[in-house]
Amino acid sequence: MTSTLILLRHGQSEWNEKNLFTGWVDVRLTERGRGEAERAGRLLREAGVLPDVLHTSVLSRAIQTANLALDSADRLWIPVRRSWRLNERHYGALQGLDKAETLQQYGEQQFMEWRRSFDTPPPVLDDASEWSQANDPRYAGIDGEQPRTECLKDVIARLLPYWEGAILPDLSEGKTVLVTAHGNSLRALVKHLDGIGDAEIAALNIPTGMPLVYEIDDRGAPSGPGRYLDPEAAAAGAAAVAAQGR
Amino acid sequence: MTSTLILLRHGQSEWNEKNLFTGWVDVRLTERGRGEAERAGRLLREAGVLPDVLHTSVLSRAIQTANLALDSADRLWIPVRRSWRLNERHYGALQGLDKAETLQQYGEQQFMEWRRSFDTPPPVLDDASEWSQANDPRYAGIDGEQPRTECLKDVIARLLPYWEGAILPDLSEGKTVLVTAHGNSLRALVKHLDGIGDAEIAALNIPTGMPLVYEIDDRGAPSGPGRYLDPEAAAAGAAAVAAQGR
Repeated sequence: MTSTLILLRHGQSEWNEKNLFTGWVDVRLTERGRGEAERAGRLLREAGVLPDVLHTSVLSRAIQTANLALDSADRLWIPVRRSWRLNERHYGALQGLDKAETLQQYGEQQFMEWRRSFDTPPPVLDDASEWSQANDPRYAGIDGEQPRTECLKDVIARLLPYWEGAILPDLSEGKTVLVTAHGNSLRALVKHLDGIGDAEIAALNIPTGMPLVYEIDDRGAPSGPGRYLDPEAAAAGAAAVAAQGR
Repeated sequence: MTSTLILLRHGQSEWNEKNLFTGWVDVRLTERGRGEAERAGRLLREAGVLPDVLHTSVLSRAIQTANLALDSADRLWIPVRRSWRLNERHYGALQGLDKAETLQQYGEQQFMEWRRSFDTPPPVLDDASEWSQANDPRYAGIDGEQPRTECLKDVIARLLPYWEGAILPDLSEGKTVLVTAHGNSLRALVKHLDGIGDAEIAALNIPTGMPLVYEIDDRGAPSGPGRYLDPEAAAAGAAAVAAQGR
């Protein structure tokens, strides 16, 4: 028996639009992002892929995306769980910086290392920064574990306990599970699911607002490659992510 | 020590606007209803009454109201629990009927008995009706308990186990709890909290989209009367509910 896992990256956010490094800064969706989320819900409904349970990060743009998609799919009533472990990668001292200016200032090599290096995090973000979440009440329970910067390897380390402890148990009950999260937390999960190497993951880009569907077997492994419900739009979206900062 | 309980009736729904008996029929908010929900969230934020946890019914209009209010209050990230026990009263065979036509056809006495009698439910709704929820997947787990009609007494009987088993435990941990629900499930809860008599409850009307705030003591009882965050607007809203069908 297999269960169905749906991964959904939030739609365009205010800072995607402004081309700023966002990370844990809690920005909202743009009108375009809201439209992407609603369209994702329609795709789910048309494909008959109907979530039984939702897992989201604690960031508003992923929660808004889930709320709008579930409204379109007529599944607002399903149970919800949220965890900081599904959050976007913490971008450290880059949070709040303009991507194009950062590219120009630091050069291609440093820029790409910060964006796509597997195990080198950006400099830590000072707790006194206006872009710090050090005093955000939503993280009050995780004091010791709250990051000040993260590389993708760090994201995998904090995400996998949630995958194993919260998402897999739902899948093993045969539920169709929707995960609404972020570019890098979903890259971390796809790396784990598809067994992608530490170097190869740099080339993987996940488009916004496109449901990516896996069948997961009894052992918690995908029984085949994930498929986008709208492959053509997904390919164009992934290319746009790859070109960011340019 | 007291904890804070916020009761919020959903904003205007499509069937409030059309003046139809709704019950468990899963209609959405109107634009006006969405505005009411957003305003409720702003009132919470301005008053500094910030929910730590949300409880909703499984009906879309209450969930949409919660989602919009929490977005306005910047609390989208709080944990959520949903239960059919917070649903609107099941209106039986009246679901889908026009309130004004029903008043005209059956007369004032029968109409008010159906709307406000404490212990006389309307006729049961046939499972074959287009307004039945007999085959709705969101109720798949509660087969034996799913109502086909309800009076207010029935609502109290199915609501109190959730109040005691799910909401009170959150309050006893000192959390500020938001409950988004419906005219009659909230009347049932207020009757319990304020110790209102079976006859007197008929005169109580709860306005849409107005946060009603209680302080709840260690024993799970209110330490005083509930207060609307905007008393003037709440009084006008309650009068409008009382006049429905006219």
